[in-house]
Amino acid sequence: VARKAFTVGIACEGKMKEADYVGIVSGRDVDKFAVAGLTPIKSELVDAPYAHEFPMVLECRLLHTLELGIHTQFIGEIVDVKVDQSALGEDGLPDILKIKPLVYDTAHKGYHAVGPLLGKAFSVGKEWL
Amino acid sequence: VARKAFTVGIACEGKMKEADYVGIVSGRDVDKFAVAGLTPIKSELVDAPYAHEFPMVLECRLLHTLELGIHTQFIGEIVDVKVDQSALGEDGLPDILKIKPLVYDTAHKGYHAVGPLLGKAFSVGKEWL
Repeated sequence: VARKAFTVGIACEGKMKEADYVGIVSGRDVDKFAVAGLTPIKSELVDAPYAHEFPMVLECRLLHTLELGIHTQFIGEIVDVKVDQSALGEDGLPDILKIKPLVYDTAHKGYHAVGPLLGKAFSVGKEWL
Repeated sequence: VARKAFTVGIACEGKMKEADYVGIVSGRDVDKFAVAGLTPIKSELVDAPYAHEFPMVLECRLLHTLELGIHTQFIGEIVDVKVDQSALGEDGLPDILKIKPLVYDTAHKGYHAVGPLLGKAFSVGKEWL
């Protein structure tokens, strides 16, 4: 919070165990990057590190902090998005089926895969226009 | 905004076309519920309607409104969650594989399915504790 910066590494299928572990422990108590075999990289844009091993990372400048009760919500401006070359589509944009992000089921605390494309947004509903 | 209330219907596989349509048009211009064949239900808890046809609905009291630039962020307190009986698991909690929510890919504007359970949260990373 003092650094007004944070990064978000997208938890993905290949790093599920690592993502779960860094969510369980606090960086105040243990060097969790080292324990999970993650490599901290110093961001050139914001004053926060990110893990080299995650295929997609958001670097954020902290804009707002909201106390919501049991949680504190941090709202940031994304100043850069870094994606592994191998996770990009032919059009150069991030490919969700290559990144394989985890979908979190809060009710049953489960990590799910992203399934196949079902339809295009701003498109499948157009027949009613 | 004046009513300090909103509802969130979870877009699901069976209502993809409806969800896409109501995201394209504005309720100021057209009775989008009627066009999409959705039934508006008056919430008993907040001053906003929801669509009967969505399997999971959140009824929210508006707490904060944040101007973020191209978007306005609304933060609400969820005062009730309504889920169709048929979308509940044996434990009485919402079952993500029965609700079949859509996962949105912003990069390619695609609606994806939720895939299979890969692991349990606060569990798969425990071996490093």
